[in-house]
Amino acid sequence: MDFKTSNAEGPVEFVNVFDLEKMAQKVVPKGAFGYIASGAGDTFTLHENIRSFNHKLIVPHSLKGVEDPSTEVVYDGDTLTSPIIMAPVAAHKLANEQGELASAKGVSEFGTIFTTSSYATTDIPEITQSLNGTPQWFQFYYSKDDGINRHIMDRVKEQGVKAIVLTADATVGGNREVDKRNGFVFPVGMPIVQEYLPDGAGKTMDFVYRSAKQALSAKDVEYIAQYSGLPVYVKGPQCAEDVFRALNAGASGIWVTNHGGRQLDGGPAAFDSLQEVAEAVDRRVPIVFDSGVRRGQHVFKALASGADLVALGRPVIYGLALGGSVGTRQVFEKINEELKMVMQLAGTQTIEDVKHFKLRHNPYDPAMPFNPDALKLD
Amino acid sequence: MDFKTSNAEGPVEFVNVFDLEKMAQKVVPKGAFGYIASGAGDTFTLHENIRSFNHKLIVPHSLKGVEDPSTEVVYDGDTLTSPIIMAPVAAHKLANEQGELASAKGVSEFGTIFTTSSYATTDIPEITQSLNGTPQWFQFYYSKDDGINRHIMDRVKEQGVKAIVLTADATVGGNREVDKRNGFVFPVGMPIVQEYLPDGAGKTMDFVYRSAKQALSAKDVEYIAQYSGLPVYVKGPQCAEDVFRALNAGASGIWVTNHGGRQLDGGPAAFDSLQEVAEAVDRRVPIVFDSGVRRGQHVFKALASGADLVALGRPVIYGLALGGSVGTRQVFEKINEELKMVMQLAGTQTIEDVKHFKLRHNPYDPAMPFNPDALKLD
Amino acid sequence: MDFKTSNAEGPVEFVNVFDLEKMAQKVVPKGAFGYIASGAGDTFTLHENIRSFNHKLIVPHSLKGVEDPSTEVVYDGDTLTSPIIMAPVAAHKLANEQGELASAKGVSEFGTIFTTSSYATTDIPEITQSLNGTPQWFQFYYSKDDGINRHIMDRVKEQGVKAIVLTADATVGGNREVDKRNGFVFPVGMPIVQEYLPDGAGKTMDFVYRSAKQALSAKDVEYIAQYSGLPVYVKGPQCAEDVFRALNAGASGIWVTNHGGRQLDGGPAAFDSLQEVAEAVDRRVPIVFDSGVRRGQHVFKALASGADLVALGRPVIYGLALGGSVGTRQVFEKINEELKMVMQLAGTQTIEDVKHFKLRHNPYDPAMPFNPDALKLD
Amino acid sequence: MDFKTSNAEGPVEFVNVFDLEKMAQKVVPKGAFGYIASGAGDTFTLHENIRSFNHKLIVPHSLKGVEDPSTEVVYDGDTLTSPIIMAPVAAHKLANEQGELASAKGVSEFGTIFTTSSYATTDIPEITQSLNGTPQWFQFYYSKDDGINRHIMDRVKEQGVKAIVLTADATVGGNREVDKRNGFVFPVGMPIVQEYLPDGAGKTMDFVYRSAKQALSAKDVEYIAQYSGLPVYVKGPQCAEDVFRALNAGASGIWVTNHGGRQLDGGPAAFDSLQEVAEAVDRRVPIVFDSGVRRGQHVFKALASGADLVALGRPVIYGLALGGSVGTRQVFEKINEELKMVMQLAGTQTIEDVKHFKLRHNPYDPAMPFNPDALKLD
Repeated sequence: MDFKTSNAEGPVEFVNVFDLEKMAQKVVPKGAFGYIASGAGDTFTLHENIRSFNHKLIVPHSLKGVEDPSTEVVYDGDTLTSPIIMAPVAAHKLANEQGELASAKGVSEFGTIFTTSSYATTDIPEITQSLNGTPQWFQFYYSKDDGINRHIMDRVKEQGVKAIVLTADATVGGNREVDKRNGFVFPVGMPIVQEYLPDGAGKTMDFVYRSAKQALSAKDVEYIAQYSGLPVYVKGPQCAEDVFRALNAGASGIWVTNHGGRQLDGGPAAFDSLQEVAEAVDRRVPIVFDSGVRRGQHVFKALASGADLVALGRPVIYGLALGGSVGTRQVFEKINEELKMVMQLAGTQTIEDVKHFKLRHNPYDPAMPFNPDALKLD
Repeated sequence: MDFKTSNAEGPVEFVNVFDLEKMAQKVVPKGAFGYIASGAGDTFTLHENIRSFNHKLIVPHSLKGVEDPSTEVVYDGDTLTSPIIMAPVAAHKLANEQGELASAKGVSEFGTIFTTSSYATTDIPEITQSLNGTPQWFQFYYSKDDGINRHIMDRVKEQGVKAIVLTADATVGGNREVDKRNGFVFPVGMPIVQEYLPDGAGKTMDFVYRSAKQALSAKDVEYIAQYSGLPVYVKGPQCAEDVFRALNAGASGIWVTNHGGRQLDGGPAAFDSLQEVAEAVDRRVPIVFDSGVRRGQHVFKALASGADLVALGRPVIYGLALGGSVGTRQVFEKINEELKMVMQLAGTQTIEDVKHFKLRHNPYDPAMPFNPDALKLD
Repeated sequence: MDFKTSNAEGPVEFVNVFDLEKMAQKVVPKGAFGYIASGAGDTFTLHENIRSFNHKLIVPHSLKGVEDPSTEVVYDGDTLTSPIIMAPVAAHKLANEQGELASAKGVSEFGTIFTTSSYATTDIPEITQSLNGTPQWFQFYYSKDDGINRHIMDRVKEQGVKAIVLTADATVGGNREVDKRNGFVFPVGMPIVQEYLPDGAGKTMDFVYRSAKQALSAKDVEYIAQYSGLPVYVKGPQCAEDVFRALNAGASGIWVTNHGGRQLDGGPAAFDSLQEVAEAVDRRVPIVFDSGVRRGQHVFKALASGADLVALGRPVIYGLALGGSVGTRQVFEKINEELKMVMQLAGTQTIEDVKHFKLRHNPYDPAMPFNPDALKLD
Repeated sequence: MDFKTSNAEGPVEFVNVFDLEKMAQKVVPKGAFGYIASGAGDTFTLHENIRSFNHKLIVPHSLKGVEDPSTEVVYDGDTLTSPIIMAPVAAHKLANEQGELASAKGVSEFGTIFTTSSYATTDIPEITQSLNGTPQWFQFYYSKDDGINRHIMDRVKEQGVKAIVLTADATVGGNREVDKRNGFVFPVGMPIVQEYLPDGAGKTMDFVYRSAKQALSAKDVEYIAQYSGLPVYVKGPQCAEDVFRALNAGASGIWVTNHGGRQLDGGPAAFDSLQEVAEAVDRRVPIVFDSGVRRGQHVFKALASGADLVALGRPVIYGLALGGSVGTRQVFEKINEELKMVMQLAGTQTIEDVKHFKLRHNPYDPAMPFNPDALKLD
């Protein structure tokens, strides 16, 4: 398949990541951009993801003697520049011909965890090399075939992956109407899952998702944990019941997400679910959060609501499209710089302080658009 | 009266039923389209019908081992493809010259209940034939004349109708301002009620509604049940008081609706009333729900709030306009396909699971337009 | 002053009273129309007046045996066609050269109470004659000079006025910015108050209001009641405290209003205050309601929230502008026809039934515009 | 640096201060106007500042015998025309070449407190002279160098400043994206802080803020109070915790602000924090309020929620831009005139009455734009 997209590499000028979305739309082909940017159904949940951060407010604190706050965290033995990590996103080659090689390099230079997607358009050894020692996690779309699953786990273990993230909220594809209107099919293959999805290129997202296992259950978590010996993060729980099921199955971490508003429209904003999940987890295992994060204040609010790590998806892909590895790194730097400014103004010196910060509930739901131009995809 | 409308028959391309509304507007004459699409007064209630589904949210559930969920239900001895049924809608010939013959055929092919309106533009034996054994219900606009009522009941019984749906929320017409602006009169006659409304064609909706009985009461329910020997569904209750009155009168089912926002503007969204009704009914009789259903997730939320069956109105009529019997069937298939996707992501294998699913209350009322282009009728 | 405005007389075609507003804007000079249509400050309260009716919802009731509901009420010995009455509005000659002669005639033909404003542009004997026996109330802007006040009271008693309505919410003019932008001055004199306001014509609204008494107190109510021997309605209370003060001073009725959003912007919608007032009044005296009433359903909701009579202002003035006495009558007929339809669908046979109807609280505040075109005054 | 801006002096025609914003945009260079008008991040908090005043409503009160209410207050021994004072705003020379000389003159003529900013573009002796005996406060951006701090305090004491306002909510600059897009640097120097910021002209706002002390703490409050012997107002607390910390450190007043929405986006509206602060302060020290005040009703609501003084920022700067000292005075007169009108209609004779007035909570969050044209900066 003859697919051309951006091959940019180098610094990008931007004021915030909403800028990047508009800029990326100009350099990424329509179908690919639509796949990246859009959400499910009426995009209610997609929009709520961002708006919901205003359901809790950061009351600034003064006279706390804070200066030059630090975002550094030690996580699982690794020192990270920030609790902001890279979310698994399929097919980086849609945004930049360098694909995951460039994004992994950018993440490595920033100094945080990179989560490789099963649907990466680069094979895992090359990503590992590009990461150059930076911690890597592997997001698993589980096959219907256990032999294939074992083989994939063997391969990722070989590459020193530190955790497996089991995607449990996407056993079928969401109703991505923009993709349907664009007639979008993946133009590039997916080497990691080629055993169970040999023809990734040329297939719709629905086809790809259906190739993975639908009837995912607690037993699969147990099996992955036991076979791989790696910590397993279950990606999907948005309520206490799901947390209990995942933890009983041996999950080593809970990843709160609604898949960026791409799966079940009519569900809650991910951020609105975080506190219930955190209460159910009760600090027994770490919590990762994604969906809707566009600002340093969003990261702050997620950490203050129970997250240990906060993952970025779309904004990084826009940075990748516009500036390759440098653009990728700039997105992390930008959000982290915003986070530091918020920490200073909120009177929090460390990430631990942020995690103990009390947000104020906002009983109102302001109708204000967060960025009215950003999501026009037709 | 020389009335021309669509006579389309065949597959329609569309991504969602909002598309259909815009497409149908182009093939159906303005007055007829206005009658179908519009609502009462300031259309507050019309809009709330759709927006209100976001007052309750579906929290996705993961690791439940769900695969290929089934929408099949056995209802009253019949196996239905889905709990999604056809609502009574007047005058299908406004949308397609084939009228109820085509819509009944499409519903039959999909495999669900067809509710014939008293104001059908096709007589009941022809509809019955087109349904070809598929269960048929009859929606009754009750006459002021008991003899006529008995005669109508005799005829529908003869045709094997399985239930009578007594419309109790439309003893006069709502304030349909679009019809007034368009000077709309029914261009086609209504054979089923021709005895008490011989001149249906050429009459306004207000005239038609006033020809039926205004002073409808519990006694009428009792009488219909006793005379016909059929189950009587009372269509209209939106609160506990009305449920009790209907059940005491011998109703065999409750149909929760606000007539698609066409009757009393300034009343609640039908979906916002469903839970109270379900609590009052307390599983003693089945509940049918309509008004505002445009998505599979809406069907899911209605079932999870107490409905046993969910009826579609306008979207089917748009499908009928654009594709005759095939377009009709496609609308049911589309919504049902969305429903299945939601069931999978919500971790529900069967409709029974959906009915036990707990929705999450949403305290906010997001101002987001559900489909801003769809309802411009001038 | 050479002022020309509409002098229309005869039937008007319209679907709802929002239509009238747009039509009236075309026939009434800009400054005069701005004075009639606009509100105070940021017009928050003006808009809330209409939107607030959606804070309570009418759940339709079925099977109540209602037929041809009646809006007739007997009030203070008079049989009125409807509890909808004419609010006091200044300077009807702004809208129609016939002024109060035509509006009084229209109100009389409809058959309800006419409230003459102190700032009428027609003298009270002529209005009385035009009313032809229909009950008349007199709205009093109290002078600083007691002699003048007595003289006015003597005159209105002579004319058989049945009640005095003391305006207590307008001791200074509200911040009418549209009037300021238009440089509006009253182009016509005000004969009833010419003793204390000889130069009404050519004066601003601020000047006119300041000519009346600012330091209005309970003693003035007592004095009016005692001197006139007429029932005194205090127009203004929006909370329990003000009700108690007015009743202690001998008020015979409470008129809940915020002056159509023309006085204090940043205050509550009048309808949102009605229930508290009704609870404080506790049926000891009658309650009149105005502000924001544009629909039959608004009248219904006001009656169900404690009002005994509901007054119309701006819509009637638009009818007057467009159709003189006939246009005036048509506005009452239109709203009353809507009210009857609502009564039928709500299952209420009489106004007494409406007053016992339980509305449903709506916790949401839908952002939906009620009529987005209607209030563009620049 | 060759910077040209307005040098207007004389009366301005305007109806409200939103007008001024639009007019000022035409006479002030883009970068300077952007700096003045814009806010942080997504401007959520900026907009909430104004919208939040509708979270509490003023119920008008009638029959209270109020006439010609007085806004005069005696504060700290000085008789002020009104509790409305001048907020500290940096760099008045951005708006008018006369700078603080003109604004101080206007404030003096109106008769209220002038708060001189550390980042004034005029030195303090000239401002003092222009104030001509009117009370002056000094807003302190604290240096990292204690010697400099002492020197500044010595100088302001010498000029008879009556209080020091310690800015505690701006230890780094907020995320002012409009400034970034405009490439804004201060075009004029800042004489008061030239010792620690010799190159104010030509520097970004971020640079300027970072030149001041970040690690501000309770000890700094103690030190300022002790060294200067002046009352210290801490500007920044928006919650009880911060109030207690400031009071324990010896603060003589609390200034509730969110810096006009210019610092931490995603925080609450300042007005929404005022009541909690007032409850924590419990009348032990005075409270000053700013952020979002554009109307007399806003001043009223702030006073009724616990403020003793209410400060104006941006609107005054717009008046300064358009009319120099006269324009400055007119802004205070306009808002104060609105305040008096509100006091009359609310039944409050004195500012003390206003402070005891009970506002009504508004559970709804109306989406109504307060002034949709005002903030388009691109």
